[in-house]
Amino acid sequence: MNQNDTICALATAPGGAIAVIRVSGSKAIDITNAIVIKDISKAKSATLHYTELKEHVDYALVSIFRAPNSYTGEDTTEISCHGGYYITQQILSMLIEQGARQALPGEFTQRSFMNGKMDLSQAESVADLIAATNKATHNMAMSQLRGNFRKDLEDLRQKLLKLTSLMELELDFSDQDITFTEREQQLQTAKTIQQHIQKLRQSFRVGNALKNGISVAIIGAPNVGKSSLLNSLLHEEKAIVSSIQGTTRDTIEDVIQIQGKTFRFIDTAGIRKTKDQIERMGIERSLQAAERANIILLLTDKDNQFPDIKIPEDKPVLRVVNKCDLTLPSASFLFHKMPTDNVYHISSSRGDGMPILIKGLIQAADIPEINENDTIVTNVRHYEALTKSHLALSRAIKSIREEVPNDLVAQDLRECLHYLGEITGGEITSDEVLQNIFRNFCVGK
Amino acid sequence: MNQNDTICALATAPGGAIAVIRVSGSKAIDITNAIVIKDISKAKSATLHYTELKEHVDYALVSIFRAPNSYTGEDTTEISCHGGYYITQQILSMLIEQGARQALPGEFTQRSFMNGKMDLSQAESVADLIAATNKATHNMAMSQLRGNFRKDLEDLRQKLLKLTSLMELELDFSDQDITFTEREQQLQTAKTIQQHIQKLRQSFRVGNALKNGISVAIIGAPNVGKSSLLNSLLHEEKAIVSSIQGTTRDTIEDVIQIQGKTFRFIDTAGIRKTKDQIERMGIERSLQAAERANIILLLTDKDNQFPDIKIPEDKPVLRVVNKCDLTLPSASFLFHKMPTDNVYHISSSRGDGMPILIKGLIQAADIPEINENDTIVTNVRHYEALTKSHLALSRAIKSIREEVPNDLVAQDLRECLHYLGEITGGEITSDEVLQNIFRNFCVGK
Repeated sequence: MNQNDTICALATAPGGAIAVIRVSGSKAIDITNAIVIKDISKAKSATLHYTELKEHVDYALVSIFRAPNSYTGEDTTEISCHGGYYITQQILSMLIEQGARQALPGEFTQRSFMNGKMDLSQAESVADLIAATNKATHNMAMSQLRGNFRKDLEDLRQKLLKLTSLMELELDFSDQDITFTEREQQLQTAKTIQQHIQKLRQSFRVGNALKNGISVAIIGAPNVGKSSLLNSLLHEEKAIVSSIQGTTRDTIEDVIQIQGKTFRFIDTAGIRKTKDQIERMGIERSLQAAERANIILLLTDKDNQFPDIKIPEDKPVLRVVNKCDLTLPSASFLFHKMPTDNVYHISSSRGDGMPILIKGLIQAADIPEINENDTIVTNVRHYEALTKSHLALSRAIKSIREEVPNDLVAQDLRECLHYLGEITGGEITSDEVLQNIFRNFCVGK
Repeated sequence: MNQNDTICALATAPGGAIAVIRVSGSKAIDITNAIVIKDISKAKSATLHYTELKEHVDYALVSIFRAPNSYTGEDTTEISCHGGYYITQQILSMLIEQGARQALPGEFTQRSFMNGKMDLSQAESVADLIAATNKATHNMAMSQLRGNFRKDLEDLRQKLLKLTSLMELELDFSDQDITFTEREQQLQTAKTIQQHIQKLRQSFRVGNALKNGISVAIIGAPNVGKSSLLNSLLHEEKAIVSSIQGTTRDTIEDVIQIQGKTFRFIDTAGIRKTKDQIERMGIERSLQAAERANIILLLTDKDNQFPDIKIPEDKPVLRVVNKCDLTLPSASFLFHKMPTDNVYHISSSRGDGMPILIKGLIQAADIPEINENDTIVTNVRHYEALTKSHLALSRAIKSIREEVPNDLVAQDLRECLHYLGEITGGEITSDEVLQNIFRNFCVGK
């Protein structure tokens, strides 16, 4: 991949009434000019030109953007043509003939990053923005693209840099005494920074749940009606559902949008006492799924006979009694009021109690409304970098407390800065890492 | 459908890195201005504006076109945004909230026609252009969009108008004698016009074959290897194939692109002598399919035992002997030379003889190379109008010859003019006809 190449790609989905082909690089305008009838080589930036293409391929609207005032920061053209397969292929062939090359996935956005038009966290939000299917995921991605996360990180970085230089300054005068007040102030600054990092780290629970779905492990004995419960949820919400392979080979996850939030229901192996070793392995995996899930849904078809498993203290649990149509009339208050004992009564066949159960699920998910200005970490890479910087800063704070020499403290602070820099991309120099980040983009972005 | 509404629609296919939403109508710029942050209400035509959208929906590039310098001839904006489903839906909602309405299929192009930006034949070519899958169909559509057909029709119209006014002028002086020379000249003019119309009519054979595929009826006894022949064609050409419902309920057509030309293979019921009445009905339908097809392929698996059916004189026939692997080595010259007796030997299981058979098919199809300036009629509506105008002109010519009074001749000439006007749209005033024409367009075009 050569950064000096002029690249081109279809930026819109195939088909449609119109299509847009994007060209970027130092020769973008010359190459585009070579395939159109009108002379656009001297056109001003941000202007539009209607022209026929050579070889009577099509009539097109050509947009001209001159560096640095473009998405990529390079000279860029966008050719808006008729959306046919044959036409777009012809135009791309002509561009390639004139010296452009087909862009790699995400390469336009990668160039935008390389040319300082956006930081890495913003570039990564572009893919999230396109993939967003609801208000919450859209707001998180837009907030990141608008640079809110970037500003947070810049703020943290400035404070950390100031603290580090203070420590390093003292290093030079290490023969003089440092007063207790100064030490205490440094400690306070470090703690404030740590709290901010911690807050960002914690937002990942919400960010990840919204982006990848809130996982709900359904645990119950065989034949208590797990799949009919799922069908009933679908029916109630007229939801879009898709089944995906779960994190273990044996689990299938059903993804359901409930009130604009994505839930991933993990159907686990039925839990019961057994001597069969293979079945016990399956049950073991169910318990592991329960451990990783955001919410546990214990399902039974008999009152008070819930599966008996150990549940982590802070994990929300819903106890659900299914098949209540056999024992209760539809009018029963148990179907119509939020339970005080956290036991939900439903009949997935009749649909009784489903709205209340859904309310319980939303409550248990405990996902706050996302404001478009909130900084929510949604990216595993960012979470990992924040965790590493948090660890380094914790070491630094411990060292300040224990009056460890400044040069050792400064080393930890520098490490903390390094990991924050990985998020925005300032500290990433490896092509491989960058390519991994942009690999999952679509071509043309 | 109100022509005064401002309309909006997603003009690109759903998905993709970027999407374009098109807005057209007298309020297009005001409505767009109401959903963006930057003030673009005074922007000049053919300019581009990068702005955030309100409610932090996205960052977008907005193109401004002022009437009449736009596709529709009205004020138009194009909002180029990120290609996500959520984003595009949000933007359309905001536009509709501001007073735009969702466009009907083809409504932008229909307005372009209504505002005199293109004639009806050009508007219709837009749909063909988008659907074009190869050079030939692309060239035909582009030629039509570039106005070649329009120019032909305009030329015919001018000549016809001149002739008609001459006839009508003579009408006023009908007491004076008309010389023989004048009569003869009028006849010659009418005949020249007729030849031109006839040439256009005849181009429909090629145009229709290229656009809808060259139909090949495969006729043979049961079990002579019709489907293995099709598979072998696919294999040889690495072709894209799709199966479609044939024109009769019992036939399935396989569409195969061979050397850039579309062939529709119609698999008919096996033909044999039978007393079974239902089977005889199937055979009857096969014979009808053969009658309609452009090419007939008689298939057998035994030398000289071709199905014995009546074939129209001018219809190309290929006689094909399948399963030759049982009788001939692969090296046999029968597989490698164009046959002199029109009998092709193949083995669809070994692939022997397929390139020669394909050569034979292309020859039989007899489709000339289409130049991008050729006027080829591809539209049934146009063909029907040309046929009607041809009939009216034939009557006029007969009348001139028979020295029928001028007013009757002029009436036929006026009718001929009317049908030509239907093609370009000048003579269409009914909304219903127009809506039928644009109904098959995609939304956003």
